[in-house]
Amino acid sequence: MEGEHTKGNSDGVENKERKEVVPKPVRPCHLLLRFLAFALTLAAAIVIAVNKQTKVVPIQLVDSLPPLNVPLTAKWHQMSAILYFLVTNATACTYAGISLLLGLVKRGKCKGLWTLITVLDAFMVALLFSGNGAAAAVGVLGYKGNSHVNWNKVCNVFGRFCDQMAASIAISLIGSLAFLLLLLLPVLKLHPTV
Amino acid sequence: MEGEHTKGNSDGVENKERKEVVPKPVRPCHLLLRFLAFALTLAAAIVIAVNKQTKVVPIQLVDSLPPLNVPLTAKWHQMSAILYFLVTNATACTYAGISLLLGLVKRGKCKGLWTLITVLDAFMVALLFSGNGAAAAVGVLGYKGNSHVNWNKVCNVFGRFCDQMAASIAISLIGSLAFLLLLLLPVLKLHPTV
Repeated sequence: MEGEHTKGNSDGVENKERKEVVPKPVRPCHLLLRFLAFALTLAAAIVIAVNKQTKVVPIQLVDSLPPLNVPLTAKWHQMSAILYFLVTNATACTYAGISLLLGLVKRGKCKGLWTLITVLDAFMVALLFSGNGAAAAVGVLGYKGNSHVNWNKVCNVFGRFCDQMAASIAISLIGSLAFLLLLLLPVLKLHPTV
Repeated sequence: MEGEHTKGNSDGVENKERKEVVPKPVRPCHLLLRFLAFALTLAAAIVIAVNKQTKVVPIQLVDSLPPLNVPLTAKWHQMSAILYFLVTNATACTYAGISLLLGLVKRGKCKGLWTLITVLDAFMVALLFSGNGAAAAVGVLGYKGNSHVNWNKVCNVFGRFCDQMAASIAISLIGSLAFLLLLLLPVLKLHPTV
């Protein structure tokens, strides 16, 4: 009886221990955040991918002749920073979709897999914020120009393109914050020491 | 005797439990990473802050007159993206310094404080990567220019300035990775489920 009691007690402590050592944050919250991250990065990628504006711009080739009206088109692939922004959002969206499916299929199983997912979440935060920074830097140049290097602003001509790009950056930024929260939720729950 | 034995055993289990519930990652590793993050963001901020190059550039004002030699100076405050990059690195450096001091003074105490520090580490990752992205986007434009928006490259004139800026971005990127690792170490150690 004593042996059984001791065993039972020990098992009880072990169960409690296991329960506390392997913490289980509120899963619906995680899944919701992951879905938000997926939806927002997808929306940001679509908004920038379909962004296109054509304007007829008068260009003075020779002083003695009247200006020539040339149709010019602004698209995402013309600027490497916007291309990078699109690639980061598409990557993060694909990853969020896959990890969301894994979250629904393998809830709580395969601890190693979820550790890998946490590491990848962190890399997505880095990737997305660098993409947002790059696109925002080019956006500011497009809106304001820079007289020191003689780069003229272009958003006075391609206003709709710039506004749509700004909206895409804002959406992507909220998606990035969702990834950041995903990363912070288990850390906040576990209160790790440094 | 039996009571003492049971108590001793229970204490032993409790100690083991406490040890695993409040995880203590290898502190020297954390402190070293935090010092690296501090040193690298400080170095990046200094390298970009002292970055300055003056070149005499011939500028053609009127076609009938010979070009005028004008001394032009490139500095960090002339471009908002580089200013943002400097501010993010200075902020991260100051924060890393303060948290490093706290790490040396209050090792393992004040769990709430360390939770706050983990949250701030995550924000530093976001801040630094957005700064790196912004500076890199402007750097690529400086090196290559962009014919679609008629922004000419400037690194053929201010080569040393651009190279020093590229070095600063590389240093900051390693500093950002140190912050990312700081954030990941406790997560990796605890294997949280999602």
